[in-house]
Amino acid sequence: MKISDFGGENAVIRLIQKNYGAPVGGDLKLGIGDDAALIDLGERLLIVTTDLLVENTHFRMEINEPYLLGWKSAAVNISDIAAMGGEPTYSFVSIGLPDVDVESVEFIYQGLADANFAFGSAIAGGDTVGSSVGIVINVTQLGLVEREMIARRDGARPGDAILVTNTLGDSLAGLQLLLKLGLADARRASEFCVERHLKPEPRVFEARAAVKTGKVHAMMDLSDGLSSDLPRLCAASGVGARVSASELPVSQDLHIAAARLDADPVTLAAAGGEDYELLITSNPADVPAVIDAIESTGSTARVIGEIIEDTSVTLVYPSGTEGPMPQGWQHF
Amino acid sequence: MKISDFGGENAVIRLIQKNYGAPVGGDLKLGIGDDAALIDLGERLLIVTTDLLVENTHFRMEINEPYLLGWKSAAVNISDIAAMGGEPTYSFVSIGLPDVDVESVEFIYQGLADANFAFGSAIAGGDTVGSSVGIVINVTQLGLVEREMIARRDGARPGDAILVTNTLGDSLAGLQLLLKLGLADARRASEFCVERHLKPEPRVFEARAAVKTGKVHAMMDLSDGLSSDLPRLCAASGVGARVSASELPVSQDLHIAAARLDADPVTLAAAGGEDYELLITSNPADVPAVIDAIESTGSTARVIGEIIEDTSVTLVYPSGTEGPMPQGWQHF
Repeated sequence: MKISDFGGENAVIRLIQKNYGAPVGGDLKLGIGDDAALIDLGERLLIVTTDLLVENTHFRMEINEPYLLGWKSAAVNISDIAAMGGEPTYSFVSIGLPDVDVESVEFIYQGLADANFAFGSAIAGGDTVGSSVGIVINVTQLGLVEREMIARRDGARPGDAILVTNTLGDSLAGLQLLLKLGLADARRASEFCVERHLKPEPRVFEARAAVKTGKVHAMMDLSDGLSSDLPRLCAASGVGARVSASELPVSQDLHIAAARLDADPVTLAAAGGEDYELLITSNPADVPAVIDAIESTGSTARVIGEIIEDTSVTLVYPSGTEGPMPQGWQHF
Repeated sequence: MKISDFGGENAVIRLIQKNYGAPVGGDLKLGIGDDAALIDLGERLLIVTTDLLVENTHFRMEINEPYLLGWKSAAVNISDIAAMGGEPTYSFVSIGLPDVDVESVEFIYQGLADANFAFGSAIAGGDTVGSSVGIVINVTQLGLVEREMIARRDGARPGDAILVTNTLGDSLAGLQLLLKLGLADARRASEFCVERHLKPEPRVFEARAAVKTGKVHAMMDLSDGLSSDLPRLCAASGVGARVSASELPVSQDLHIAAARLDADPVTLAAAGGEDYELLITSNPADVPAVIDAIESTGSTARVIGEIIEDTSVTLVYPSGTEGPMPQGWQHF
């Protein structure tokens, strides 16, 4: 049976997790199936995450730049380290290269190196090989986290406030502008949204500030969009969520981009995808402390809803009507 | 300038190492440019290695099987851990999949899992994504090594004996049979050589036994073949080598395969490639102890030459004539 008839990527991932992954135990505290693995080193834990990007499947060079491809390849992995409350340490970059310009390769690596440097990490190894099928990049990112600072997605409790950092939906609007207009015209339409898509900023400092308050119950990074990732956090925690559409943080730029795209900015924010903002739950009484900590890094954070006991995840509109979250990012 | 005009893969690798890698220092004891990175954890060091394989560049499914592809993808990384004297712990597998049979994916993972299990490691994470360009596999392998057992390629000294484990050249003969005859007929011509190519056995137990003697000066695994890898060990150590053609360990199967290929078995053994045997140097007086240790694991080992002060690397034929090593494996 072909993967497409079997239920697609997610069905294959479940099969692999069930049959071939190491069970959690011994020094392995979190294994296959999570965004990152956690390996106990004693006082600290090693975080390991990896992401594979294939040209023309995950990125297209017509609407990208080599430097930004490098930056983003590193940034999305660093974001997984941040999601667990950790600090990125070393990055291992495997790259498959067709016979492209050497200058492009230098730009890709400059982007990789800059993203690492910006967040306290460095490139410590990798594999450089030929490729007859376009550019392939795999980044494996290591990080470290103190035992008492580990953030996971399974700690949300009914009654928790749900917070997100900064604004949502900008990256999705940026992608839609890129697909509709091409790189140059998309930049003219919304430099901000395009930059949010091509050069995401992992929220390492925000996450560290948040976990240092000791008040974070659950945390993850929004890689697939709120409407995909919030249900995952809820499923891991055995809870549900009610999100208020009017509280979703929408940038002024998203309003402008949405008009250009003939789309609803709140729908773009709720669906999202590749935001790389933080999704956090904490006791409502502790929200001011968490927001203060995050704001000390220069970012913003706000409450968008609450965790409920019932396992449904719904979006509440200003009219009072409730519905499922708009559909987000899809792989495969 | 295109990569091909710039000097190919190796020139690009040197450029990347020079400009974008983390310098060794702090907890980073070995970084970009070596087969694996070494990160100091205190009593032990973390070894990290990664390998990227792209379909139709690094493997062809017409002359392979999904299970063996999985096995080899894991085994070649585990071999890098063995080369440093370490024990493999966890493997992270990124895989890009076209819309293939789910059964093929299961066989690939079974091979990955079995190779891990056979050498004390386990799959702890990864990334499974779609791919429009064929199968792509990246394995990042972690391992641990005690400080006093680290083996490196830069410790060879003039006068050292050069040892290799088991036999060389079988894998190259297996590949040539596969390319010439296809999978089924190549297996009929030499099941042993084909298996040596498609299902290499990393020498983890042999390497651990050798480093535990405390007598290993330098060690590496033979991934690109003796004629490519010995010069690398010599360059890292600032020495040269004289290898005796008549001492190269050639299997009976290689003799038969070489006849079928109309090739010289000694040339195949010296050129080699993907042998994944160990290359070791030690004081001649300690050779019996090192060989005894390796033989306790069920493998064999023998002296094939000596390290010399002059930085040339030559092969000495039974007639007494000397020449450069036959050309080995080439990437790109």
